Amino acid sequence: MKLHGYFRSSAAFRVRIALNLKGLPYDNAFVHLRKGDQRSATFLGINPQALVPALEDGPHVLTQSLAIIEYLDETHTAVPLLPKTPHERARVRALAQIVACDIHPIDNLRVLQYLAKELKADEAAVGRWFNHWIATGFTGFEATLAQDKATGRFCHGDAPGLADICLVPQVFNSQRYKLDLGPYPTIERIYEACMTLPAFDAAQPAKQPDAEP
Amino acid sequence: MKLHGYFRSSAAFRVRIALNLKGLPYDNAFVHLRKGDQRSATFLGINPQALVPALEDGPHVLTQSLAIIEYLDETHTAVPLLPKTPHERARVRALAQIVACDIHPIDNLRVLQYLAKELKADEAAVGRWFNHWIATGFTGFEATLAQDKATGRFCHGDAPGLADICLVPQVFNSQRYKLDLGPYPTIERIYEACMTLPAFDAAQPAKQPDAEP
Repeated sequence: MKLHGYFRSSAAFRVRIALNLKGLPYDNAFVHLRKGDQRSATFLGINPQALVPALEDGPHVLTQSLAIIEYLDETHTAVPLLPKTPHERARVRALAQIVACDIHPIDNLRVLQYLAKELKADEAAVGRWFNHWIATGFTGFEATLAQDKATGRFCHGDAPGLADICLVPQVFNSQRYKLDLGPYPTIERIYEACMTLPAFDAAQPAKQPDAEP
Repeated sequence: MKLHGYFRSSAAFRVRIALNLKGLPYDNAFVHLRKGDQRSATFLGINPQALVPALEDGPHVLTQSLAIIEYLDETHTAVPLLPKTPHERARVRALAQIVACDIHPIDNLRVLQYLAKELKADEAAVGRWFNHWIATGFTGFEATLAQDKATGRFCHGDAPGLADICLVPQVFNSQRYKLDLGPYPTIERIYEACMTLPAFDAAQPAKQPDAEP
């Protein structure tokens, strides 16, 4: 398999964690988002959405991080990333989607660039925007975790899964404008539990071959 | 089942289509987003994320539209909303996520309100923002459909599914600032095919009991 990614991309980070948890080897192809590589003709031929990650698996090119991770979970069942019952699966998917649908897209690089270039937002306003959407999403995420006995050492029980895979890159991301994690003790506890695992640690941006200071 | 929704919510619209396609009866509970009902103590007890839709099914409260729809697909298998093979499922989920992760969250009511109130964006700037993100997402969506023989009368083959369920509310939404659909002929064709089906037609905002002019 070949992963088209970028060290700083939270969505590529999710897929790296999933591949690591399942012990699947993969090759890297780096797409430098700040230099605009994602809009090159070559990359648009791989993913016309001009986004990373994209995963090549034999003849198939898969896009969108959550779709890729569900595909890996269906094709490599040894370390399941979703629980077994439909309502538990729905809980884990919903937690993942708080991050993937309600936080991360609004704080994406391309959105921040639009705020600065088109709306002339200054750095302070961009920082407030960034932290506002993480705080809004984390408030719901924290409450959902804290009020439910299904929460364990990880977001769902005592094994890491899809919700943790989305949460950890978002916590990394939240340090860009130094969001205070004090109001989110369950998130912070689970983040720390995840980072003790090599699958999460090895996937972090600073440890990728394309990492920059 | 009881659906907590709002006639104008695209995410609730998706769940209404899924329930209709599967022929599942449901009760409505209306959450008036413009009046802020989603932040009431009563609703936060149902969904601490302060978002619609939420679906009550017996003892379970499900949140996040895509998680709800996958749950309905797992618990009521008669009219499948996803294909059978992992790579086909990944294709349909990725199309759904172009809308649910890369378009809709950035154009949500709460984001538009933030642009106007906090960043003092005027109506014209908000309209440009709105259409920019739909056009960016639809360009990738259209290219993904147009270049793949798996596309049929609907986004994947000749039966409607999860990708169509996400696409149709987004096309409705695109008319708010009168986006020209000319560059997206496949999207327009599939949208029109969907709207001939009672399950899609009956789910549209104007036909809901809480609809306002």
